[in-house]
Amino acid sequence: MLLDKIDSPNHLKSLTLPELPQLAEEIRHFLIQKLSATGGHLAPNLGVVELTLALHYRYNSPTDKMIFDVGHQAYVHKILTGRKNRFDTLRQKDGLCGFVKRNESEHDVWEAGHSSTSLSAAMGMALARDLKGDSNRVIAIIGDGALTGGMALEALNHIGDEKRKLMVVLNDNEMSIAPNVGAIHNYLGKVRSEKIYHKAKDELDWLLRKIPAIGGKLAKTAERVKDSLKYLVTPDGMLFEEFGLKYFGPVDGHDIPKLLETFKQADSVNGPVLVHVLTTKGKGYTPAEEDSHTWHGVSGAYKIESGQVVKPVGPPMYTEVFGNTLIELADQDKRIVAITPAMPGGSGLLKFAKKYPDRMFDVGIAEQHAATMSAALAMEGMKPVFAVYSTFLQRAYDQVVHDICRQNLNVIFAIDRAGLVGADGETHQGVYDIAFLRHIPNMVLMMPKDECELRNMMKTAVDYDLGPIAIRYPRIQGTGSAIDAVPTPIEIGTWETVKEGDYAAVIAIGPMVQVAEEAAELLRREGLNVRVINARFVKPLDEKLLLSLAKEHMPVLVLEEGSVQGGLGSAIMEFYALNNVHSVPVHLAGIPDLFIEHATIKEQRAQCGLTAEAVARQLATLVVRQRQRAT
Amino acid sequence: MLLDKIDSPNHLKSLTLPELPQLAEEIRHFLIQKLSATGGHLAPNLGVVELTLALHYRYNSPTDKMIFDVGHQAYVHKILTGRKNRFDTLRQKDGLCGFVKRNESEHDVWEAGHSSTSLSAAMGMALARDLKGDSNRVIAIIGDGALTGGMALEALNHIGDEKRKLMVVLNDNEMSIAPNVGAIHNYLGKVRSEKIYHKAKDELDWLLRKIPAIGGKLAKTAERVKDSLKYLVTPDGMLFEEFGLKYFGPVDGHDIPKLLETFKQADSVNGPVLVHVLTTKGKGYTPAEEDSHTWHGVSGAYKIESGQVVKPVGPPMYTEVFGNTLIELADQDKRIVAITPAMPGGSGLLKFAKKYPDRMFDVGIAEQHAATMSAALAMEGMKPVFAVYSTFLQRAYDQVVHDICRQNLNVIFAIDRAGLVGADGETHQGVYDIAFLRHIPNMVLMMPKDECELRNMMKTAVDYDLGPIAIRYPRIQGTGSAIDAVPTPIEIGTWETVKEGDYAAVIAIGPMVQVAEEAAELLRREGLNVRVINARFVKPLDEKLLLSLAKEHMPVLVLEEGSVQGGLGSAIMEFYALNNVHSVPVHLAGIPDLFIEHATIKEQRAQCGLTAEAVARQLATLVVRQRQRAT
Repeated sequence: MLLDKIDSPNHLKSLTLPELPQLAEEIRHFLIQKLSATGGHLAPNLGVVELTLALHYRYNSPTDKMIFDVGHQAYVHKILTGRKNRFDTLRQKDGLCGFVKRNESEHDVWEAGHSSTSLSAAMGMALARDLKGDSNRVIAIIGDGALTGGMALEALNHIGDEKRKLMVVLNDNEMSIAPNVGAIHNYLGKVRSEKIYHKAKDELDWLLRKIPAIGGKLAKTAERVKDSLKYLVTPDGMLFEEFGLKYFGPVDGHDIPKLLETFKQADSVNGPVLVHVLTTKGKGYTPAEEDSHTWHGVSGAYKIESGQVVKPVGPPMYTEVFGNTLIELADQDKRIVAITPAMPGGSGLLKFAKKYPDRMFDVGIAEQHAATMSAALAMEGMKPVFAVYSTFLQRAYDQVVHDICRQNLNVIFAIDRAGLVGADGETHQGVYDIAFLRHIPNMVLMMPKDECELRNMMKTAVDYDLGPIAIRYPRIQGTGSAIDAVPTPIEIGTWETVKEGDYAAVIAIGPMVQVAEEAAELLRREGLNVRVINARFVKPLDEKLLLSLAKEHMPVLVLEEGSVQGGLGSAIMEFYALNNVHSVPVHLAGIPDLFIEHATIKEQRAQCGLTAEAVARQLATLVVRQRQRAT
Repeated sequence: MLLDKIDSPNHLKSLTLPELPQLAEEIRHFLIQKLSATGGHLAPNLGVVELTLALHYRYNSPTDKMIFDVGHQAYVHKILTGRKNRFDTLRQKDGLCGFVKRNESEHDVWEAGHSSTSLSAAMGMALARDLKGDSNRVIAIIGDGALTGGMALEALNHIGDEKRKLMVVLNDNEMSIAPNVGAIHNYLGKVRSEKIYHKAKDELDWLLRKIPAIGGKLAKTAERVKDSLKYLVTPDGMLFEEFGLKYFGPVDGHDIPKLLETFKQADSVNGPVLVHVLTTKGKGYTPAEEDSHTWHGVSGAYKIESGQVVKPVGPPMYTEVFGNTLIELADQDKRIVAITPAMPGGSGLLKFAKKYPDRMFDVGIAEQHAATMSAALAMEGMKPVFAVYSTFLQRAYDQVVHDICRQNLNVIFAIDRAGLVGADGETHQGVYDIAFLRHIPNMVLMMPKDECELRNMMKTAVDYDLGPIAIRYPRIQGTGSAIDAVPTPIEIGTWETVKEGDYAAVIAIGPMVQVAEEAAELLRREGLNVRVINARFVKPLDEKLLLSLAKEHMPVLVLEEGSVQGGLGSAIMEFYALNNVHSVPVHLAGIPDLFIEHATIKEQRAQCGLTAEAVARQLATLVVRQRQRAT
């Protein structure tokens, strides 16, 4: 096995060129084997085996900076940089991160989990290099999907203007997670497929060189056309040339000699270049090649032979309940349309897209545009449902403030993956949306305790006509709650007392309601009755309930799977402060002021003190303290 | 006067084509006169007089939707839609808004103050129109500067893919606020200047039609080239054609007949079109034509004859102190570089740019790219100072979380226009940055009470090597504080007691410290001594001081020019709650949960209860209440 010998890029460089395809095959085998136990981003990594080998063969990491956009396609890079023996721990607590991670290796020079940041990173690194008088290379590896993110285009605009030496490797596999959409994608498709372009310019050149011999008016025109020929170009790479980058390609991304040859050509340019590389996502593993959408990221184990992914048993995911319910609601309300930024599958919208293709808009990786387009749809009387992961909604914060909430438009936000997300780790945690949404005027923000309540909240949102309204829900299976045939709207700003008690009160949201109930049950066995309140609305608060609660002089614990800083607990304290209520001892339990790394959601909850046992302990202490105070 | 007769677009349509240039001149005169008293966005509006006339002459607002990007170039639109008599009240409390405002007129269909939203809005409106089966036109009017904002490019990518009928009018004046930068700008420059392009394709076509008569190999090649000729195009509009929009132009934006003719041609296309219009910013008023940067937005009155803008007297603006101090610091520290998203003037960086052109990066309207590029500069050992208005930093929230804070990089944020901003109104208020920054792990956030402290904080930031650090400062003049020759760093997380007192304590930040001192002085005259604490750090808090304060059992008022929701007051309450301190009655004064419209900063403060008098009253009540509680 060649792979056995490879623990650093220097080992790789000691191989001969003809040995590299064999190494590529060994790496593919390694990935398919290892990930069948752990899950992970199989298809993207199978697609970049040769590309990553070629990059590390030609360039000198970490002196030369390799910046992997999104960072989930860096498994091969990890294998080549001394981490292959840690793949059994991939995406597990204290194990190998599923993304580029600086504390793992000096070869990891830029971290990401969100898409489209690599070009800005490359620009910054190139500027710093030039300011310091260094001469290292800077290489951004970006997918065609990520290229449609607005910030990547902002960076391209700057890169083409600054003319610094840097290389953009466009890994064109025609997919982001789902198949790509958009004009740039269509453009790349043209470049890939229409071979007729490639020779046109050369032939024209030949033709014009012949004509002067003929003489006359024809010749004169030919001369003029020749003068302007430099502006007459084939569309090959034209888009990038217009942005000011020298274009190379398209080149077969699975042909290592061709890749190396193209890199060599590109390196001779003293300015920004783009190398257009064609790859096949899932390459070398038939199930992944045939359905790279499913195999983009596999959340758990799979059987290699059959290509069967082991599915969790039990209640449906919240995502699935959302998707099904949206169809029911859309059946009855023609105003409902769905908007997704390149996540039709992850957001549970595939069935909706099938039933209502004209009412479904996948805008590509473009959260800002998605949000503001939703605003305009609402302005014209539609009921846009913007389905987005909590962590990606961060990209549209300004659009939520400036376009949606300030204009007070009826946009429905379906915020998936809210709270802790497990194996994707710190780049994907959905723990800030409460803190970044609840200070925005006009916003209504809800979170359901179970899948039945999710349906009721969706109905609430569709019926609501007074402005923006958001539902956040977690990346987990539902509780298995009975689902009413017809969802019932909930009165805005009303909470629900799910368990009576008078020693202390827990105000919880979302899945934390169940945790609170379990904690209460633990305490009941010790003779302590704790009240559990389901705070269905983060905004507006149930002011009546809060004022009434204040009269009972119980300690109150606010329990949320979100940042303590700026969270529901703060909202409650603000309300009391603004109403001159200073008698309620409010306590806080939530995500502390640090980034939570990859692990299972259960482990992450334990780390944050959000388990039934931890909550019960905290409550018991509060009750004891309250009693001491009373005596 | 033709203008006297114009109170709606219908009146405009009753004029003859030859009358329109006269009306244009009258409108120019009107704008120059009116704005000389009120200030406002003079140069952008002088640039679009004919364009706006042509649009309203040809199309039927409000059935046809006119979406003005940024919305500050809609004065002519306001004049034509019945609001010319309100221009004396422009940008004043309860007066005409400086931006498009839906509650002013049915002709105002989309509001904005931030740039680059119009294409997303147009896409949403076109989709809604088609879903409803309507046939109105949708027209986005966007500047070449705004076109470089990432979300505009995201929208372009979607528009070109969807192929809905809509018109993008590209108002190309080579400026955003400052002269434009970037590859797209360079591209447009080529289109504008190189007339040689325009005929090349036609001539080539003619040439190729002649050749077959010649026969032989030449003819065969000519045939092949002809086949592929459809792909051989001049760069004119190529960028937009590649994005999937049909391109028209460039057309002189001050020639009404040509504009109308071009619109007519464009209307015949059943899909997305882009009309490239060349305009001169400041057209018709020499001072504004010659220096459209200064005349982009004039904050107050000016003398028409001399073109002299009335400057405020007194201490320098915080912005100016920032700019000067940055040069001092950069003189001594080569790592310092400055980054601005198209605001070199507004951010006080013009002198810096002159002295250190190689260390200054204007990236265009591209806050996301600016933030992440800063992260990469920091990664490579530089000290990037990202100078940005509070309201525009909203655009980079995700990049602050995901790229800067998560990777804990030494980026310095210089957040200008933090707090209330006056006449620009609700789209520009800088009142959310505390709420959207303080929950992000690793962030340090400061605000100075005066210009001397601003300098000290800048020195603090440059010396700090443990991660991101931000200074927010207001859009006002300094207090006139004495400025130390050499700035002194402040210990991270330490507050300053500026006035002793034991009846109550005010914890204030920024300009609110002075307000608190004035309030304390008012109360001192009544025999009440109130402590004033300057909370220089919003994060981290001065925990020692807070714990010590808790022992004194005084009521505490937190005073901030920022959203009460999620603000400094909440941070203090969270700290007490997490430390089991429930004995401090914390009260809150700040920006309430609504959008604050245009007025003077003084009026806006009064509206929010942030004046010395209001604060004194609130404090007096707290003291009385505390005494009642004690007895």
